[in-house]
Amino acid sequence: MTALDRWREGPTREAILGFVRSVSEPGPAFVPKPERIATFDNDGTLWCEKPMYVQADFVLRKWKTMVADDPSLAERQPYKALVEGDRAWLASLTDHVPDLVRGVSEAFGGMTTEAFEAEALEFFHEARHPTLGVPYTDLAYAPMLQLLALLEANGFAVFICSAGGRDFVRAVSERVYSLPRDCVIGSSAPVEHHDGQLVRADGVEQPIDDGPGKPVHIWARTGRKPLFAAGNADGDIEMLSTARFALLVHHDDAEREFAYDAGAERALDEAATRGWTVASMKNDFSTVFGPPPAR
Amino acid sequence: MTALDRWREGPTREAILGFVRSVSEPGPAFVPKPERIATFDNDGTLWCEKPMYVQADFVLRKWKTMVADDPSLAERQPYKALVEGDRAWLASLTDHVPDLVRGVSEAFGGMTTEAFEAEALEFFHEARHPTLGVPYTDLAYAPMLQLLALLEANGFAVFICSAGGRDFVRAVSERVYSLPRDCVIGSSAPVEHHDGQLVRADGVEQPIDDGPGKPVHIWARTGRKPLFAAGNADGDIEMLSTARFALLVHHDDAEREFAYDAGAERALDEAATRGWTVASMKNDFSTVFGPPPAR
Repeated sequence: MTALDRWREGPTREAILGFVRSVSEPGPAFVPKPERIATFDNDGTLWCEKPMYVQADFVLRKWKTMVADDPSLAERQPYKALVEGDRAWLASLTDHVPDLVRGVSEAFGGMTTEAFEAEALEFFHEARHPTLGVPYTDLAYAPMLQLLALLEANGFAVFICSAGGRDFVRAVSERVYSLPRDCVIGSSAPVEHHDGQLVRADGVEQPIDDGPGKPVHIWARTGRKPLFAAGNADGDIEMLSTARFALLVHHDDAEREFAYDAGAERALDEAATRGWTVASMKNDFSTVFGPPPAR
Repeated sequence: MTALDRWREGPTREAILGFVRSVSEPGPAFVPKPERIATFDNDGTLWCEKPMYVQADFVLRKWKTMVADDPSLAERQPYKALVEGDRAWLASLTDHVPDLVRGVSEAFGGMTTEAFEAEALEFFHEARHPTLGVPYTDLAYAPMLQLLALLEANGFAVFICSAGGRDFVRAVSERVYSLPRDCVIGSSAPVEHHDGQLVRADGVEQPIDDGPGKPVHIWARTGRKPLFAAGNADGDIEMLSTARFALLVHHDDAEREFAYDAGAERALDEAATRGWTVASMKNDFSTVFGPPPAR
């Protein structure tokens, strides 16, 4: 079994190693290989989500180019808040979902899936994390990359289950996570077929891959519930509830990453109640970022 | 390369073997392994769909038990047509989609995914094809099973892409096709999460996995367009249009299976126009049913 040397020795690392061993080696808890499904939330679980979601940066940059091309957009939301630097509006995005969905539709609606992927790849090539100064593709958590590799080495099929855009993450899943694009489950605009082309339509496909939608997306993709699941926020509770082993990443390391419980309050309560394993980034991660382990 | 000995020698077999060789061996048409995606329609392409869809028999049997439990159901459709043996109504099912969807919802809505799968497995255990007298699981086409194996042996990822119910086919995909359940793409009732359980809700998730919905479902599952696709009916046209190699199974063998062009008229026209490969069951299949080849 691969050692988790980017995890510090302690009960979290032991719980993970013990569970993986118990289901993959002969014994009372053995689980046949096809049932060894592991699902990971993406933002905040596999890579950094602060000060904003990576995909939010992608969308904001696109909106900036749209306003540059058509200044009249600045008269209405969501472009207005962006141009005016309206931090209050931008900080309360969940109050403005219809405006946001319309903005995303205006940004990418009508694009082919190939054109969308090309824009995503250009973003990943050019953009830098606003405070850490490195490409977003360098901001996966080294201990989590090592955990993905450990699970695969023990016969698990590993999936990313992102509340964010499926096709956005697929553009870099191989490079960042060594996971092929079809292992990425996530939310999406409706995709439509027109004359042999696949084109993004307006709006968002329901349910999105968050909260109660997460186990639904996992079922649709795999026909199973996860054996192992990892998340970091309240939107991961339902996915974690359906898994035999649930891991909650706790962002408590202000020095090496960001410390915040906002959006994870209920998940932390559930973890205490249900006995989920909580990974403290401060105490359990021996490194946070860094080169992925050799696979 | 595995020989396709359940296919008769001739241009269809040569076209298939030539294409598979050209994309999987070094040369100008070589395609990297991750892009080798093959998608197969199910009813009429991989197994027999006459005199009625296998899943239709499943639903009709369920409705019969429901009417037995509650005779008042016989006063309204779709139960009325079933009880009265109203062949005209049953023969024009597509004119009665709302009644049918309501009937399916009443049959399976509220069931957990586990309970639904148990009922599907019981059906496959008990039911016999009405004219051929054998279990439906024996009615996959031997040449097509051999084709699935050939593609897998040459690095293709193979998917079933059914207009019918995804979770119905998943119940037997391993047994019938040696394909794991997550390789089945298909239509579905909406599935919802309730307290750690996954439950079938009423209605049908849109788009269904037919016609223009097929390449959309394939994209959602794989993030790719198919390199190789096979179908048999008009609902497969859009999937076949997005593939590099398109195979259309033609039901022209009244002696060994069923001969019919109904529902495939446009597909046969498209095949002629676009140069798709047409497999004549009469001329190209050396056997139709029979034990699957050793894999």
